[in-house]
Amino acid sequence: ARPRVGYYYTGKTGGQLFQERMLKMRVKDFQSIPVVIPESASVYDAICSMFLEDVGTLFVVNGRSKLIGIVSRKDLLRASMGKQELEALPVSIIMTRMPNVTMCAPDDSMLEVANKLISKQIDGLPVVKKDSNGEYDVIGRLTKTNITKAFVFMGTEEQAK
Amino acid sequence: ARPRVGYYYTGKTGGQLFQERMLKMRVKDFQSIPVVIPESASVYDAICSMFLEDVGTLFVVNGRSKLIGIVSRKDLLRASMGKQELEALPVSIIMTRMPNVTMCAPDDSMLEVANKLISKQIDGLPVVKKDSNGEYDVIGRLTKTNITKAFVFMGTEEQAK
Repeated sequence: ARPRVGYYYTGKTGGQLFQERMLKMRVKDFQSIPVVIPESASVYDAICSMFLEDVGTLFVVNGRSKLIGIVSRKDLLRASMGKQELEALPVSIIMTRMPNVTMCAPDDSMLEVANKLISKQIDGLPVVKKDSNGEYDVIGRLTKTNITKAFVFMGTEEQAK
Repeated sequence: ARPRVGYYYTGKTGGQLFQERMLKMRVKDFQSIPVVIPESASVYDAICSMFLEDVGTLFVVNGRSKLIGIVSRKDLLRASMGKQELEALPVSIIMTRMPNVTMCAPDDSMLEVANKLISKQIDGLPVVKKDSNGEYDVIGRLTKTNITKAFVFMGTEEQAK
């Protein structure tokens, strides 16, 4: 094949360019602000926080603001089906507790996190930083909404070119 | 610039190739099975269906199986905070009713739907087919989970090359 001038040239295939672009999308570029509640909160408090802050996932922290658990809309809905008083039921009873919480770091790729969300069948996870004691500070929230925004970003970015 | 042999050649830019690939991803290739409930169902019935079927969005249909509304996990959680008996509260009271339901068609692009999910701030929508009376049959369900799967699919497809 005789190459002609005027074509785009990078020395890379379309697939390679694409892959690089996807792996460049990092959690820290798309993450949302985390919403935390204390472990002493009731299930009723948690439902209120969820509506006030308009989120689908809450992170439960201890007195030193370290991550100890996570609750989803689904967990709270399940609790609300029971016969218990939601004001009297502590959120720490129904939360998913550490070390069973799936987490991610600010430098993780969005692709890696998307894979975790699908394989673990969860809607969102905390973005964390490990402290010197091996405990975790919550610094962000990454959900399927953020993945959907990344998907739109990719499509829109390319169409503008 | 003097072109050299041995490079990938398509006559298209990486951006164009990418855009084509994104627009080729259609709703019908990624949609899930829809879960419907009758308009006579109670909020309690709806919550039970949501857990039995493990979905976050239910479609409400009339006696002729035509779409009349949609309920989300968030709608049901809000209802469960109230003081009403969930068994006595009809789902048709709290659902989002037609024509305010955002819908999509099997041939819509995933990018278009992702845009709708973000701009309307919803988690999922029905995939519909219009009948000869201008009413809608529900033939699928498209959620942020499906968008996340499409995101993973794109990344994984390209990395395999």
